[in-house]
Amino acid sequence: MKKNRLFTPGPVMVPEEALLEMARPMEHHRTQWYRDLHKQLHDLLQYLFQTKATCLVVTGSGTAAMEGAIIGCCTQGHKALVAEGGKFGERWVKVCKTFGIDHTVLKIEWGHGATPAQIEKALAADPKIDAVIVVHSETSTASGSDVQGIARVTRGRGALLLVDGITAVGAIPVKMDEWGVDVYVTGSQKALMLPPGLAFAAVNDRAWERINSGSPHALYNDFRAYRKAMEKWDAPYTPAVSLVRGTLWTLQSIRKRSLEAIWAETAALAKATRSAAKAMGLQVYPADPVDSVTALCLPEGVDEPSLRKTMRETYGMHIAGGQDQLQGKIIRISHMGYVDAFDTLGVIAALEMALRAQGVKLTLGAGVSAALGVLAELFQSQRS
Amino acid sequence: MKKNRLFTPGPVMVPEEALLEMARPMEHHRTQWYRDLHKQLHDLLQYLFQTKATCLVVTGSGTAAMEGAIIGCCTQGHKALVAEGGKFGERWVKVCKTFGIDHTVLKIEWGHGATPAQIEKALAADPKIDAVIVVHSETSTASGSDVQGIARVTRGRGALLLVDGITAVGAIPVKMDEWGVDVYVTGSQKALMLPPGLAFAAVNDRAWERINSGSPHALYNDFRAYRKAMEKWDAPYTPAVSLVRGTLWTLQSIRKRSLEAIWAETAALAKATRSAAKAMGLQVYPADPVDSVTALCLPEGVDEPSLRKTMRETYGMHIAGGQDQLQGKIIRISHMGYVDAFDTLGVIAALEMALRAQGVKLTLGAGVSAALGVLAELFQSQRS
Repeated sequence: MKKNRLFTPGPVMVPEEALLEMARPMEHHRTQWYRDLHKQLHDLLQYLFQTKATCLVVTGSGTAAMEGAIIGCCTQGHKALVAEGGKFGERWVKVCKTFGIDHTVLKIEWGHGATPAQIEKALAADPKIDAVIVVHSETSTASGSDVQGIARVTRGRGALLLVDGITAVGAIPVKMDEWGVDVYVTGSQKALMLPPGLAFAAVNDRAWERINSGSPHALYNDFRAYRKAMEKWDAPYTPAVSLVRGTLWTLQSIRKRSLEAIWAETAALAKATRSAAKAMGLQVYPADPVDSVTALCLPEGVDEPSLRKTMRETYGMHIAGGQDQLQGKIIRISHMGYVDAFDTLGVIAALEMALRAQGVKLTLGAGVSAALGVLAELFQSQRS
Repeated sequence: MKKNRLFTPGPVMVPEEALLEMARPMEHHRTQWYRDLHKQLHDLLQYLFQTKATCLVVTGSGTAAMEGAIIGCCTQGHKALVAEGGKFGERWVKVCKTFGIDHTVLKIEWGHGATPAQIEKALAADPKIDAVIVVHSETSTASGSDVQGIARVTRGRGALLLVDGITAVGAIPVKMDEWGVDVYVTGSQKALMLPPGLAFAAVNDRAWERINSGSPHALYNDFRAYRKAMEKWDAPYTPAVSLVRGTLWTLQSIRKRSLEAIWAETAALAKATRSAAKAMGLQVYPADPVDSVTALCLPEGVDEPSLRKTMRETYGMHIAGGQDQLQGKIIRISHMGYVDAFDTLGVIAALEMALRAQGVKLTLGAGVSAALGVLAELFQSQRS
């Protein structure tokens, strides 16, 4: 018996019941059935983002929704600041360039999150900036930014805050309204534990005011069309009905478990993985680690492609490598979606064996024991 | 027992085996598994479009891919002619307006297809036009355009031809290379009998030359990124993996049945429905009916919403109504996707009963008998 387990930071494992929900016979979307589903989904999305804002459902990848957010909020006459410390920050810079959006890039050292002080300084230096784009969890470096602190700064200066929450929302604390974030975006294939194909954007009234005042070069990604259709719980273009149906299922299950419980569990899985790494003599890569995905530095001499191949082919454990300057240097293990404490123990056990096969000296069991220490605390806290 | 049958012109019914294929455990897309799948899919897409051109897989609705095609081929310095005779033609005009594309609208009377002569005249009148946008099957009016003839005109004048084949490809004859079409677009939820969420665009070298010479205001919908990623059978943004997997299944089944057989069957279902309509005293709405979807005029005094409600609630038959000026005046019955002769007999039978309940005088069984006459011929021809 060899089971496959996905620890890639999206796509993640999907609950069997969600897969079956999506395999139900097709229904049409211009129906009362869809409108009821859409309305129910909206309530749950508001819970997910912790907001009273309008939450849009976009058929496409997270990139589509972030593009829609950026081009809607940064039309002519506005200027954006993009905090860029990894592959996703780079992508939002590319959106600004492609659409000719006036913008400044705030370079963040890879492995670090953007800080409120950095944003404050950049805004003070250029009062023209009235929109800030930040990646909450930079998946490529497994680093987290202090969105709560940054929102305090943007609110103070009257700038909009647009957050790429693609590997944050549903995994780590996100409190859109309490913090004062104006647009939060996420995708289906991360903490929502669904296949890829849907993106979600929560857009508050401050952002709508900006969006409604401009005319972006976009039809498909023009958020205004989505909001207008939502007046009747409709969609402007044919939505990915089966995925929407799956989202209702997973959001109901998230609601039942509660976000607080999920945040605590994700944090514990991350902490367990970091503890295991320490016990195995591996360094955690980022200076500001985020809890949705862990990046570990590989010891000298370890061949990353062959390590991942062993993980995959011998143990059925699918983990990610590094990108660009981090290629061959790190591995990444996700804590999002349909993954639990025992899956996580398993990936650590497999990593111990795979590293040993590459000649890394370690005491077999040291990693899993350290992880188990953390995970036992999690179960203890859940019982009490 | 009450079964539900979808005769809406998308979403359509999905084969149970495709639903289960999409319900298989999630796999990652940056893997050899996905690259192999993508390559296989590409061969099948080339068969579907009858082309050697590059076929892109876009996560989004058909609108996303048509937008990508239009903005890629009609950048600054180019001028488009949009044949507009229904809701989808209107949408492509809207894309041109939104993106500030220089364009002329060729108004087509609703219910009619665009003709080669009309296109010829419009091109002769304005030599600046170097791209023509045509809807092959205008779903809103159930009318078809003579794409083969139009392609002869555009080729003769050196203009690109972009075809919205969303309710055409896989249902009615489409021969991209033989005809000389430059871009053909379709969506997953029509003749490909899948849930919505994917769109496909076949783009030939003439179109790529144009696309590569410009810089559209688009990141997500920039076709160049898709083509570049395809050099390694990769995708630029996370694709809807489960839907891609389902597409492989349905395209394999289409290939097995052969396009010619499917075109013949779709044509027979349409002919059967038109024959039934005649026998029931109903008029076919379009002057140029297309075979993928049939639009029938309702007799005076029939209340369309209540007719569709009876069809749906009493008989489980989901049909579509008319849009805009056709609202309340027509009903539309799809012949696309996972629908066969007996389903079609069923929807005609239900329509007879539902019309009778509204006081329409008809001989019960006249419709189904007429349809059966046509369908028997189909079975006869399949046997021989």
